[in-house]
Amino acid sequence: MADSGGRTLLELATLVGATIEWPIGCDEAKLGQTVVLGLETVDRANECDLTFVGNAKYARHLDSSRALAAVVSADIPLGDAARARVILRVKSADHAMMAILERFAPPIDLPPIGIDLSARVANSASIDPSARIGPGVFVGANASIGARTTLFAGVSIYERASVGADCVLHTQVSVRERCVLGNRVILAAGVAVGTDGFGYRPSADGRGIAKIPHIGHVVIEDDVEIGANSCVDRGKFGATRIGAGSKIDNLCQIGHNVEIGRCVVMSGLTGVAGSTKIGDGCRIGGGCGIADHLVIGRGVNLAARSGVMSDIPDGATWGGFPAQELRNALREIALIRKLPEWHRLLNPLLDQTKAR
Amino acid sequence: MADSGGRTLLELATLVGATIEWPIGCDEAKLGQTVVLGLETVDRANECDLTFVGNAKYARHLDSSRALAAVVSADIPLGDAARARVILRVKSADHAMMAILERFAPPIDLPPIGIDLSARVANSASIDPSARIGPGVFVGANASIGARTTLFAGVSIYERASVGADCVLHTQVSVRERCVLGNRVILAAGVAVGTDGFGYRPSADGRGIAKIPHIGHVVIEDDVEIGANSCVDRGKFGATRIGAGSKIDNLCQIGHNVEIGRCVVMSGLTGVAGSTKIGDGCRIGGGCGIADHLVIGRGVNLAARSGVMSDIPDGATWGGFPAQELRNALREIALIRKLPEWHRLLNPLLDQTKAR
Amino acid sequence: MADSGGRTLLELATLVGATIEWPIGCDEAKLGQTVVLGLETVDRANECDLTFVGNAKYARHLDSSRALAAVVSADIPLGDAARARVILRVKSADHAMMAILERFAPPIDLPPIGIDLSARVANSASIDPSARIGPGVFVGANASIGARTTLFAGVSIYERASVGADCVLHTQVSVRERCVLGNRVILAAGVAVGTDGFGYRPSADGRGIAKIPHIGHVVIEDDVEIGANSCVDRGKFGATRIGAGSKIDNLCQIGHNVEIGRCVVMSGLTGVAGSTKIGDGCRIGGGCGIADHLVIGRGVNLAARSGVMSDIPDGATWGGFPAQELRNALREIALIRKLPEWHRLLNPLLDQTKAR
Repeated sequence: MADSGGRTLLELATLVGATIEWPIGCDEAKLGQTVVLGLETVDRANECDLTFVGNAKYARHLDSSRALAAVVSADIPLGDAARARVILRVKSADHAMMAILERFAPPIDLPPIGIDLSARVANSASIDPSARIGPGVFVGANASIGARTTLFAGVSIYERASVGADCVLHTQVSVRERCVLGNRVILAAGVAVGTDGFGYRPSADGRGIAKIPHIGHVVIEDDVEIGANSCVDRGKFGATRIGAGSKIDNLCQIGHNVEIGRCVVMSGLTGVAGSTKIGDGCRIGGGCGIADHLVIGRGVNLAARSGVMSDIPDGATWGGFPAQELRNALREIALIRKLPEWHRLLNPLLDQTKAR
Repeated sequence: MADSGGRTLLELATLVGATIEWPIGCDEAKLGQTVVLGLETVDRANECDLTFVGNAKYARHLDSSRALAAVVSADIPLGDAARARVILRVKSADHAMMAILERFAPPIDLPPIGIDLSARVANSASIDPSARIGPGVFVGANASIGARTTLFAGVSIYERASVGADCVLHTQVSVRERCVLGNRVILAAGVAVGTDGFGYRPSADGRGIAKIPHIGHVVIEDDVEIGANSCVDRGKFGATRIGAGSKIDNLCQIGHNVEIGRCVVMSGLTGVAGSTKIGDGCRIGGGCGIADHLVIGRGVNLAARSGVMSDIPDGATWGGFPAQELRNALREIALIRKLPEWHRLLNPLLDQTKAR
Repeated sequence: MADSGGRTLLELATLVGATIEWPIGCDEAKLGQTVVLGLETVDRANECDLTFVGNAKYARHLDSSRALAAVVSADIPLGDAARARVILRVKSADHAMMAILERFAPPIDLPPIGIDLSARVANSASIDPSARIGPGVFVGANASIGARTTLFAGVSIYERASVGADCVLHTQVSVRERCVLGNRVILAAGVAVGTDGFGYRPSADGRGIAKIPHIGHVVIEDDVEIGANSCVDRGKFGATRIGAGSKIDNLCQIGHNVEIGRCVVMSGLTGVAGSTKIGDGCRIGGGCGIADHLVIGRGVNLAARSGVMSDIPDGATWGGFPAQELRNALREIALIRKLPEWHRLLNPLLDQTKAR
């Protein structure tokens, strides 16, 4: 939600506790009243924009930026060209950015409170009067939608599913039968919750493959956010669970009966196979794959593109494929980089061996 | 569909041909009449639940489980604590689980037979009177929907597409023009069938990239199941084909003119590039990538996260990147693990070489 | 769009500038009038179909093909069996195929011009009178849809989003608030544009994770095509940009504030993390992952399944993980293949070392 507070340079400086460095010769009184119209990256900012420099790598781009002003971390040195604008010095530009982003966040149009005329809601469904049910939404029998929850256009809630309070389900989201979402859950466009798990057995005639019924469900606890087009399979029996506060990026696949702990952060295009447990507070990089029936401890850090084939103890930092302690994986990579040098050394010996 | 049969311990034991091991001192007559209310994992089961132990790794969890009873594979030894409940001994707990899951599977609400008032169906489309066309469904001109097929809310069938009998297309599925689905096909939420293949050529002015028309289609044979948000591109010309009985997991990408044989099982986040052929009965792990124009033989096993750059002969088991016979890939991994040891050996020699 | 021009062998030969090689003893006058009914692959073509051979690898399949005729690249030798049909010799069968595909491309049913009665369009939205707004489409307040643009069934356009002229947005596409699409943009089924970026910070109470507002948007320039179920996150502030003419395949993930240049081609299941810049004309293989805040130069070629951890200079060809120059990556792979041989050589030395 947008803050209705002001957006002059002085107000923003106060908001983030910044020390102001005025450009030489500028009229401080006038600049203090200058209103910031927008936020932009250093290279695209124009004369009405505020920008941010939190990394010394980007500081030189400030020299030629047209930005009205810049929020800069305390430890980043700036030359004269960069200082030809107002500099708001803060301990961490990244942290200051958060507060300023919240002030600038524009309101988002939500569907009106109530049920859109084009929505199809079963008579037996329970819709809180404060909920916002958008156009073309489907809500099945005995499903329930909590207070102040928003279902954008085209969301589909199967029978007996339960969505808590203050949730936001973007367009094209589906939640299948009997799945349970807590409060303040955010599902981005196209998220599929409660799809059948991937389990089969040889068919009775021995010539094909038969589907194993997945009679379980999915439990998504409070404050979880799931990114666009990600999928969470329902349990074979029992539940697939995503713990409170966890954040899952776009295009992730969570297999049947997976249990993800609290405040886990998982980046995009990662897959977790059936029945694996991931402990609280894990950080999982993008493009990882985690095999089935594993136990990943609490507070594990997993480097991007790891392929995990075994349990991981609490607090470990792993990477590579098959994943192992990251320092070992990195050491292997460094040694592989030496193989051409080793080859020059070993080749004569190999030739001798062959000659024998 | 749920079986209306009973769910007492004795009935379930009979269903799966189990030998019953009664806990010492229990009233067998009473327990035999006890009704199982649910199925749960060992660690989450309560006093009304039946659970399953098919892997010795999990047997110890049974000691502290609250489960009323457990189905346990014959070869798994149990201690006294575990045996403080009814044990249903079977040859394979996994196989017994299938039969019991089918008995417990709850019925799923389907849209009513007929065409929902909010569905938009072209006059020229052919909808079997026994089909279930849900709210907000779109069916284009000259498309056909077979007997007893269900289209959940928001499904979109483009013109001249054909969906066979007894299919289930979950919400948000799309099937583009002229694609053909056989009978008993199941498409999970968000599956996109018949999207244009990824083919371009330099544009006439030499400055850009022009789209190659993809005038082909997709053929999905009987008994295929495709997981949520997976994509099957249409042929450039001719068809992209998925053979009868094949099962494709969530978030898979099947390129244009790919031909997948019968009873292939493909796990999630796998991609197959254009025109590759995959033989009958292949098992493909999660996160694999298979390059274009390859021939993967029949009955090939591909380890998770393989990257295939060449043809694979019938019956082979491959893995790694670039994929090769799995035993060779595993041997390489084992030897890479030895590189630090080799480094200690070779470093003095390398220093000598450099010193010369 | 289908060309209404003829489809006799002679007309098609003229279209692509082919030299016709008649089979011995055939009635040229009659064959010249023969109409080609369809295009098919060599192994599936029947007696009314034209097929294509652009790769010597497939030439032998022509011997047993039932195809009426084949377009064959000039440098591919054919035996007598293959020549038992009309051969249209061209410089490149692949290029000739483009022109012929365009002639055969059947028309696609678009929703009628105007706004479908079941669409929900805000009063303040601006819809060009020539646009085609399909059933169940949602268009939010102050959004705009350009001339001749098609929104298929179930598309969702959030408030203040702008879609240019001559765009095609397939079913289930979503474009969130304030995102901007240029002209002739094609979005396949299920594409999600403008989803929130994946950015969090520790919550105020230090016990959880709080969402960073993403107040930016997405800019998709002219002639971009994005494949099914791909996702483009909105900028944290400023825009995520996809440059004119770029083509992105299915199931790709484009992070917040990524900037993709002009005419970039990116294959499926690839992810690009936040704020990375990709230069004009890059070719990115399938299944790649590119870390955040990197600069990928112009005209870079990236092999499939690369994992990029560092900047890449203009014009480079990279591969592997961590990605490096492809020739070095390939050399490493070749040397790893030699490790078993090295092992036999080094093992005695290692045993000696240990014995000491």
